[in-house]
Amino acid sequence: MYDKVEWKVTLNGLEGEANHMSHLGEFFAPRSVAIIGASKTPGKIGYSIITNVIKSGYTGHVYPINPKEPEIMGLPCYKSVLDIPDEVELAVIAVPASLVMAVADECGRKGIKGLVTITAGFKEVGGEGTQREHDLVELCHRYGMRMVGPNCLGIMDTHTPINLSFAAGFPNKGEIAFVSQSGALLASILDWSLENGLGFSKFVSLGNKADLTEADFIQDAAEDEYTKVILAYIEDVKGGARFCEVAGRVSRKKPVIILKSGTSQAGAQAASSHTGALAGSDLAYDTAFKQTGVMRARTMEELFSLAMAFATQPVPAGDRVAIVTNSGGPGIVATDAVEAAGLKMARFTKETLETLRANLPSEANIYDPVDLIGDATAERYKFALETVLGDENTDSVLVLLTPTGVLDTDRAAEVVVGARAQFPDKPILAAFMGGRNTEKAARYLQDNGVPTSTFPEPSIRAIQGLAAFARHREEPEAGAVTTFDDVDRDRVRQIFEAVRQDGRRVLLGSEASEVAAAYGIPVARSVLTTGPEAAVRAAQSLGLPVVMKVASPKILHKSDVGGVKVGLDTPVKVRRGFIDILDSVANYLPNIQPHGVEVQQMMPGGGTELIIGMSKDMQFGPLIMFGLGGIYVNLFKDVSFRLAGRLSRKEIEDMIGETKAQTLLRGYRGKKPADIGAVVDAVGRIAQLVRDFPEVTELDVNPLIVYEKGVQEVPLTALDVKITIS
Amino acid sequence: MYDKVEWKVTLNGLEGEANHMSHLGEFFAPRSVAIIGASKTPGKIGYSIITNVIKSGYTGHVYPINPKEPEIMGLPCYKSVLDIPDEVELAVIAVPASLVMAVADECGRKGIKGLVTITAGFKEVGGEGTQREHDLVELCHRYGMRMVGPNCLGIMDTHTPINLSFAAGFPNKGEIAFVSQSGALLASILDWSLENGLGFSKFVSLGNKADLTEADFIQDAAEDEYTKVILAYIEDVKGGARFCEVAGRVSRKKPVIILKSGTSQAGAQAASSHTGALAGSDLAYDTAFKQTGVMRARTMEELFSLAMAFATQPVPAGDRVAIVTNSGGPGIVATDAVEAAGLKMARFTKETLETLRANLPSEANIYDPVDLIGDATAERYKFALETVLGDENTDSVLVLLTPTGVLDTDRAAEVVVGARAQFPDKPILAAFMGGRNTEKAARYLQDNGVPTSTFPEPSIRAIQGLAAFARHREEPEAGAVTTFDDVDRDRVRQIFEAVRQDGRRVLLGSEASEVAAAYGIPVARSVLTTGPEAAVRAAQSLGLPVVMKVASPKILHKSDVGGVKVGLDTPVKVRRGFIDILDSVANYLPNIQPHGVEVQQMMPGGGTELIIGMSKDMQFGPLIMFGLGGIYVNLFKDVSFRLAGRLSRKEIEDMIGETKAQTLLRGYRGKKPADIGAVVDAVGRIAQLVRDFPEVTELDVNPLIVYEKGVQEVPLTALDVKITIS
Repeated sequence: MYDKVEWKVTLNGLEGEANHMSHLGEFFAPRSVAIIGASKTPGKIGYSIITNVIKSGYTGHVYPINPKEPEIMGLPCYKSVLDIPDEVELAVIAVPASLVMAVADECGRKGIKGLVTITAGFKEVGGEGTQREHDLVELCHRYGMRMVGPNCLGIMDTHTPINLSFAAGFPNKGEIAFVSQSGALLASILDWSLENGLGFSKFVSLGNKADLTEADFIQDAAEDEYTKVILAYIEDVKGGARFCEVAGRVSRKKPVIILKSGTSQAGAQAASSHTGALAGSDLAYDTAFKQTGVMRARTMEELFSLAMAFATQPVPAGDRVAIVTNSGGPGIVATDAVEAAGLKMARFTKETLETLRANLPSEANIYDPVDLIGDATAERYKFALETVLGDENTDSVLVLLTPTGVLDTDRAAEVVVGARAQFPDKPILAAFMGGRNTEKAARYLQDNGVPTSTFPEPSIRAIQGLAAFARHREEPEAGAVTTFDDVDRDRVRQIFEAVRQDGRRVLLGSEASEVAAAYGIPVARSVLTTGPEAAVRAAQSLGLPVVMKVASPKILHKSDVGGVKVGLDTPVKVRRGFIDILDSVANYLPNIQPHGVEVQQMMPGGGTELIIGMSKDMQFGPLIMFGLGGIYVNLFKDVSFRLAGRLSRKEIEDMIGETKAQTLLRGYRGKKPADIGAVVDAVGRIAQLVRDFPEVTELDVNPLIVYEKGVQEVPLTALDVKITIS
Repeated sequence: MYDKVEWKVTLNGLEGEANHMSHLGEFFAPRSVAIIGASKTPGKIGYSIITNVIKSGYTGHVYPINPKEPEIMGLPCYKSVLDIPDEVELAVIAVPASLVMAVADECGRKGIKGLVTITAGFKEVGGEGTQREHDLVELCHRYGMRMVGPNCLGIMDTHTPINLSFAAGFPNKGEIAFVSQSGALLASILDWSLENGLGFSKFVSLGNKADLTEADFIQDAAEDEYTKVILAYIEDVKGGARFCEVAGRVSRKKPVIILKSGTSQAGAQAASSHTGALAGSDLAYDTAFKQTGVMRARTMEELFSLAMAFATQPVPAGDRVAIVTNSGGPGIVATDAVEAAGLKMARFTKETLETLRANLPSEANIYDPVDLIGDATAERYKFALETVLGDENTDSVLVLLTPTGVLDTDRAAEVVVGARAQFPDKPILAAFMGGRNTEKAARYLQDNGVPTSTFPEPSIRAIQGLAAFARHREEPEAGAVTTFDDVDRDRVRQIFEAVRQDGRRVLLGSEASEVAAAYGIPVARSVLTTGPEAAVRAAQSLGLPVVMKVASPKILHKSDVGGVKVGLDTPVKVRRGFIDILDSVANYLPNIQPHGVEVQQMMPGGGTELIIGMSKDMQFGPLIMFGLGGIYVNLFKDVSFRLAGRLSRKEIEDMIGETKAQTLLRGYRGKKPADIGAVVDAVGRIAQLVRDFPEVTELDVNPLIVYEKGVQEVPLTALDVKITIS
């Protein structure tokens, strides 16, 4: 590649404005760039960078900075950016870590707008590296500079063009922006892409993400007219809220496809709440991606086959796939893949079927998958492709081909490329199943905008991605976050304060119930009592029968220690219950001093038991869980999650819809429907509570009993609320 | 390929015995073969076959048969096999369909042992083709001939060598036997394999499977010393019982990997039983494969990457994977894939960790995944590979590489191949992530027995397959099918006969319960009554309270029409109940004449509701379903399946273990454990019932109530049994 590219640095500056200016224009289309640490010595990073920028065909000013050299690569070399007579927009820093602060300071004084800090030895080494990174970011902010890195491979833009990296190569021009948290992976993909016909608009190595993050580059790529699809490899997200805001907006405009690694559950530590236990470390990402419309690639192959499809194909109108093949077996394999992907086989119109029947051999199958049979020629493919592509019930097409003695494979590839041009609104992908006899044709297809695989399944996966984006783009926006005015923030604040005063982090049941009640969740009324007579009085005021539970934030499974009694319907039983509970607990847990016994209203049976819970993620904040509650929570794990920060009414409805609990709520097997609107409200109120009080670290409402509509006075009641604060 | 192969037909016969004789030796290593329909005209199938057999290097006698030619390809040509002076072992038939019977008859008279019938126009065209196929098979059996096809591409054996097909090519010699129901797919794979370093021992195109089926060729490949792994693409199985017998036996010896297409659920028609509704059309295959140890490939890529791994790698001792990489990102991606595949990361010994720490740079990660960092050389790879391969806690290794300026990729490939030779007992796979800079090295790896992919995930999937086979091979055999002597076959026969006499196929509840009881399943006793007074007498003899249900095989959901009443505890209520039930049913379903009302013993509450059911598969016979019963069967779908024909005690325990019902049976949240042995027995008894009575087409025992151990007199009781017979 390099050998063919002429060195065409124009020292007179840019030949015209960069016409695809994105909001990080100073990085991708700078008028001038200083390479601090440029070197004449092959093998050095500073050598690679200066040669890369020159070879890339960049037409702006390039200023090598190296105190020891008068010129590098024929360009005058400066001791410092401060010595450059003209304005400089961007600087690439590739000096030892100990010198970075000094040169960055000079960049700031020079009025440079952006830094690409290649140098390693910052946060990734810990200790003083972390401090150095902190200082560097502070310095940047002081001067109003933005920074990529440190500890990165650099950045590239093929349309400017500019290569500000030390990678061994420059990608082909294309419409895929690729952002990677791993520099090595970026370099690998670059090398791979040069052999596989994949082109890129931008390559960004994020490095330590000390300043600019994935969100910034997703935002930038969204605005870049040369970018059709945004790809990222990340190991974490920096700034969950901003990421969600940007990704949620951008993903409706351009596909955002992310491979997030580190899905291992090893980090999901034991948690005391149900919600915490069910929310693995990777779940917050899955939830955030789903809620923001980010397409999550599960493998690297998937990441790039999706990218290729989006870069070359139009977005289909729907999910109906037509398959055209010259052999039955592969047609069945592809049909299986269509069903497995949740796509639909096309149902052709009567006209299409008649046309196919009239023109294909009688042994051919005219229904989808269309089987042109073993003696099919390229012309038969042409006829069939044009016919099914012309059908209004076809949204996209997969062309399957097995090499035969009678088929001119190269001509068949031309036919497919012809159809690509003739039907610009429908995706066409191909699987040419062979090696020796199909290689040239497959290469021709790839080079002419038809993604081609050896086997049918990856093509169908790509069509699935295209159809999913089409659907996502058309979906109504999630809408505003649900909020309620009738909440008593002050009361909650008081309760939390009292708990803290008491030296506790875990609320008593009665306290937690009051918090829920303050946010408008109907709760079974509960009184904390410290003696048998008080318990009887409480029971009489609540109304018999009652439930009694030991009050202690230290006992997680109260039933297991004889700490719960239900259905106590006389003062005698209540009095006896109080004593028995404390006796039993003292017996099981002699070292625990309960706060007393809670006497709770006993709610009528017959409802559906739900759970609403909250788990906290470092990056994305509170996640709300909804699902089937009671003792079967952990057995059936029938739960769904959403980020509390973005929880609209529509999203609450969606999350309920993802569970089997919804089937029960709608009235299952003879039961009447429950008031689902009241359940939606309850979820929204809990979300608001945890948004309003970030000190809530864990929360479970379980069970929340929901009754058949109209059967009880209130549509639902929380029987047990657990809250932990920080 | 062809250009390089010399034509070396030795007309003097085989040069020594074929030393890999399998039980279908006449097909894969015949001493002599007649090509009936051989042709001199390029483009004709008969031309392709005769040239293929000659070019393949076959050393036995080849006799072209064509009444119009005196010689073909320098070989004397005969008008009929009857004219050949010597013995002929095998004949390939490639004449028009109308002539096949005549030439096959001549083959029989000649004493030929095997036919490969290439000719199409048989069952696949329907009508007289079906009859023709039937006649052909009958003729073969009359003469004691076996047959491949008709309507097939032919067969090949690379070790004999012999190519009896009209495919355009001959595979490289290898250790993979590939059996395909699609000729086109076989041809595609052949073409593809020539470019991808995959070698095969045998290629078999099954065609219509009129005589020899996949089971025969799996059996044959199992006995073939050149075959290490058996691969099949099938669209259905012919003869489920024999397939299971063969596959179950072979899969413990050699890996049997099958891509079964046609998984579409379109064929799963609405069924009246729960079991029928939950058992999709593909489920029988899934179940049969699981029960026989067949590895099911989900995509074509998976099929061949598994094949490649098994052909080149040893079977690992366990599932602990060590990863050696020169960059972090891809290491994390691979680690994710390891966890997703259910494999484990290796935990190195103290010695290994110390050796790595002493010899690797301090920034390197010495724990799995071992990160040699960006400046790793091939020699560092060599050291690390030898160290981790030498660790007793490493079962297999994935070598990850991203191209860098300091790494000699080709040398690294040599290092990997060296390790392959040095550690013959541990699988080594590679992912060289690049294109231009890794292509040569990747090719070298492939050519030297190290399966190599561009991205890590497919390699991990292949290791998962290797580890699964290792595990399967070590598992104890499933054991004998459970049988019980204390069953009353005669009583069941009488009941079925009476139902048939009554012109019904669906048993009444009382009849079905009696059938279950005859097979030793405790049932809630039930009496069919036709008047209110009889109902009262029945209730009194059963003991109050009772359950009453309308008796009618035509009413599927009795509750919905007011046809069920529970807890009737006085004669007055029973009498009233009888009348109310019939009134209500008459009101809802005026055209149905119930048989009466069933009065059933009311069983105590508090048990776990299970379901045992049966669904019938065309190929594999009865499938037994077990799971959580009651009204939530369809909501939670917590069920597992096994083929009744092979159901051992161990397999019943396994199928219970696959469900959440097991968690409940073991005693969940304060409940005591149930008698799981009694549940195993019940499943075994139902399996025996449906094996003994093939006329049972549908069966549901739901709910089967299982009590906490020791709480009730019997450990379990069937409350409702539904049986349909043919």
